[in-house]
Amino acid sequence: MKTDIEIAQGVELQPIVDVVEKVGISYDDLELYGKYKAKLSFEKIEAVKENELGKLILVTAINPTPAGEGKSTVTIGLADALSKIGQKTMIALREPSLGPVMGIKGGAAGGGYAQVLPMEDINLHFTGDMHAITTANNALSALIDNHIHQGNSLGLDQRRIIWKRVVDLNDRALRKVTVGLGGPLNGIPREDGFDITVASEIMAILCLATDLKDLKERLASIVIGYRFDRSPVYVRDLKVEGALTLILKEALKPNLVQTIYGTPAFVHGGPFANIAHGCNSVLATSTALRLADIVVTEAGFGADLGAEKFLDIKTPNLPKAPDAVVIVATLRALKMHGGVAKEHLSEENIAAVEAGFANLKRHVENIQKYGVPAVVAINEFVTDTPAEIAILKELCAKISVPVELTSVWANGAAGGVDLAETLINTIEAQPAQYKRLYQADDSLETKIMKIVTEIYGGKGLVFEKKARTQLGEFAKHGWDKLPVCMAKTQYSFSDDPTALGAPENFDITIREFVPKLGAGFIVALTGDVMTMPGLPKLPAALNMDVAEDGTAIGLF
Amino acid sequence: MKTDIEIAQGVELQPIVDVVEKVGISYDDLELYGKYKAKLSFEKIEAVKENELGKLILVTAINPTPAGEGKSTVTIGLADALSKIGQKTMIALREPSLGPVMGIKGGAAGGGYAQVLPMEDINLHFTGDMHAITTANNALSALIDNHIHQGNSLGLDQRRIIWKRVVDLNDRALRKVTVGLGGPLNGIPREDGFDITVASEIMAILCLATDLKDLKERLASIVIGYRFDRSPVYVRDLKVEGALTLILKEALKPNLVQTIYGTPAFVHGGPFANIAHGCNSVLATSTALRLADIVVTEAGFGADLGAEKFLDIKTPNLPKAPDAVVIVATLRALKMHGGVAKEHLSEENIAAVEAGFANLKRHVENIQKYGVPAVVAINEFVTDTPAEIAILKELCAKISVPVELTSVWANGAAGGVDLAETLINTIEAQPAQYKRLYQADDSLETKIMKIVTEIYGGKGLVFEKKARTQLGEFAKHGWDKLPVCMAKTQYSFSDDPTALGAPENFDITIREFVPKLGAGFIVALTGDVMTMPGLPKLPAALNMDVAEDGTAIGLF
Repeated sequence: MKTDIEIAQGVELQPIVDVVEKVGISYDDLELYGKYKAKLSFEKIEAVKENELGKLILVTAINPTPAGEGKSTVTIGLADALSKIGQKTMIALREPSLGPVMGIKGGAAGGGYAQVLPMEDINLHFTGDMHAITTANNALSALIDNHIHQGNSLGLDQRRIIWKRVVDLNDRALRKVTVGLGGPLNGIPREDGFDITVASEIMAILCLATDLKDLKERLASIVIGYRFDRSPVYVRDLKVEGALTLILKEALKPNLVQTIYGTPAFVHGGPFANIAHGCNSVLATSTALRLADIVVTEAGFGADLGAEKFLDIKTPNLPKAPDAVVIVATLRALKMHGGVAKEHLSEENIAAVEAGFANLKRHVENIQKYGVPAVVAINEFVTDTPAEIAILKELCAKISVPVELTSVWANGAAGGVDLAETLINTIEAQPAQYKRLYQADDSLETKIMKIVTEIYGGKGLVFEKKARTQLGEFAKHGWDKLPVCMAKTQYSFSDDPTALGAPENFDITIREFVPKLGAGFIVALTGDVMTMPGLPKLPAALNMDVAEDGTAIGLF
Repeated sequence: MKTDIEIAQGVELQPIVDVVEKVGISYDDLELYGKYKAKLSFEKIEAVKENELGKLILVTAINPTPAGEGKSTVTIGLADALSKIGQKTMIALREPSLGPVMGIKGGAAGGGYAQVLPMEDINLHFTGDMHAITTANNALSALIDNHIHQGNSLGLDQRRIIWKRVVDLNDRALRKVTVGLGGPLNGIPREDGFDITVASEIMAILCLATDLKDLKERLASIVIGYRFDRSPVYVRDLKVEGALTLILKEALKPNLVQTIYGTPAFVHGGPFANIAHGCNSVLATSTALRLADIVVTEAGFGADLGAEKFLDIKTPNLPKAPDAVVIVATLRALKMHGGVAKEHLSEENIAAVEAGFANLKRHVENIQKYGVPAVVAINEFVTDTPAEIAILKELCAKISVPVELTSVWANGAAGGVDLAETLINTIEAQPAQYKRLYQADDSLETKIMKIVTEIYGGKGLVFEKKARTQLGEFAKHGWDKLPVCMAKTQYSFSDDPTALGAPENFDITIREFVPKLGAGFIVALTGDVMTMPGLPKLPAALNMDVAEDGTAIGLF
């Protein structure tokens, strides 16, 4: 069987100029990065602002197994199938972080015959967006430490600096560090830590900014820490938002690539789905809606995190709400939610599918609460049995949600045609009537309570001491009018990763809040949230190489 | 008076495809980064390998004032002047680090009417080479710490890891850090530090590698640290040279841009001139020699460091040695060497010019020792007086070295025509007969002694205890056959930055050696060498901004 990279390298790419011509983009609108990648100019983005909007399809998933449910693969394959049945389609996807590529999982550009290309470039440096974000993030850190070193006229309390450094690598040794050691010439010693770049607030900002002006205003609003009197200090107090915007100006332009099938795809921005909102950039999604008749996009993690944030945080920044939500499920994951241990997931188990369906059912009902129709996509695995597929279809029919089997990983566009057709029919039959889960004026506590009871299916909320104190402080600063970004395990509706299926009667414990004023949301941390992954004992890097002609080897 | 960025933004750029056509490069040979930047394909580099070689001109300088003598500006202006008088000319320059741009000095792409463009891009992310080097460097660090965390089967002594992390920023707080804090999940605590990216050995490697295969072999040869028995551990022991090469494969391709005048320029690689060799990439210089009739390149710092390393370290990796060396001097710097204080450099002082000439004279004689003709370029300043210029010309005539006044900063190509013509005449009249200063078989001590006595004009050598011990250890490892890379102040021939002019009878103290087996040289440290700059009280970042249309503001 061919690996993803072998499939990708076997495809003859079309020049990106030709690929994007079908959505009305010409050579002059592009800044090429080689022949197969390009950034779209701000002029073009501005020029299409009054265009009619296409349909928007959000792809999300049930609570995943650790291997993932193939959401990106289905997103790409569905878009290719839509292209195949004659729809003028675009994709709006997140761009992957280089760090995990060196670690375990390999690429994040889809898989099999549903990939965005050139996958090697997308998984490595791509057009440099991650590097620009890393640089802007760390330039801010250097400017903060320099400010303190040079006299600290803003009165920053070096024990309460919340702005951390980042690298786009999996590097556990950088999670907790001390900086400024070695004497007075090297600054003020203090505790610090590194997150992975995609966890930087600047990544979230880049993904929510609507233009350079908005980007700069958001950067200016970042809270970097507190004074000794606990008053917040913002980037605007340092007066470096202009410099940070300068570092980021090219990164804000959405990137264009193609799928194996030739569908034009924006791949732009990739914030974490726990401490951030986990969706590609607003600028890419909005522009795609103005260029294509139908746009397929994706949100990170399961629907309780990804779709909730897409609908409550990203959608208010978009020109329109989704017209439908595709929920990706695998029979393996349903069996896991039905109580089957990892080593038995390949065996037929009808009862487990029936039991695990509770997880899918809750996600479907959640989406419907937003007034948006849901469609279930079964991402086919070789171990799926006809009886399992039949029972799942029957269960979906009982709750009147359309369901289709897809095999885009194995069959590309052709494997997604049924799903594409069902989706088009659903959109036509059930126009979406989006409503947000909570109102801006709701208190932070109310917003979280609505998420916990309406989306997670939980009972109540517990605030640890620090979080309880912060509720008061944040209200005092006027930060409580912002949306909430939940940082929770992706494996369960609850904050306990082992509580699979559709748990009930649980409380969610909020440990701490983190203000992300630039992104425009308040992160609520439930338990420990990993913002810097580590490498495994045998990192993927050990298998990587380059042929003498420059061909990437063993990327995955 | 217009600033550099105002001049640059006033130029109508030609598409890079058109610019490089004059040296036989076509669209298919390029990987475009926007319309005005491109990387040259490995195929083209290979295809021209048997081409006849053009003439090579190295631009260097006397020991500089802290403001610099305008070496890059003269390099660019001289090349433009050569273009203007009908020579098929290319430039091969270093690419700047982003860190200092945010600090004091602004850009490093020439100045006035002698600039490489687009200067904003070149000074910011350019084509991502710096970021690729940062990523490769730090991926190696993460893999080292992970190796120790996962059981340390190589037996690395975590107290003797010499591989440091890097960022492409001026960030003094990162000079000395502790990593791996916070408990067993976060790795092994140890002391570490960050250098600026251009100080990474990987930068030096990229600049000396002749192809991907050579790059990989050099990466494999990096010494990362020592075992408890003091035996060295190499990257090849970790088996990650393939992954590092993969991260660097695009960065190895030379970048093409244009000057204001339209001369095609390689701008590729930029290692430090103290702990590294301070020249742009071998691949760019070699390829330029195969494409153009005359190539102008530059070495960092004054000639005692930059030219010496170009001639003893880089030249053996090139297809040919320089045909001439241009030594840039300013009357301000000569007066400084003649004993004038900084605040009086703008006043006429003939006696000081005469006294300071000793510095220039020694550099001229040094170049001649390599069998290469020297030409002096006086980089004109508004404060220069006719009498000062006359006496300098007279002094040069006495030692029979050609000298020309240049005004390329103010007048562009036209300001360098005299220098260009004199240079062409010199090359024709005096064919270079290059000989290296020392032989590979010379011991480290002999090599350094030759540099100190023949180039610096010093008397002898003092080894501190650590360096003395290392001499024996390095000989045992077989590392003493490598060239020496001196890390010394650029302000004086000696290791005392205040000893201006042409000091004599001094000793050079070697504090420590650093093995750079991948780069292929041994660094000899004299005194403290700064490998991570800091930011000033009012960083340049405070004045930077972006207009709403994306135009860079206040870059410098």
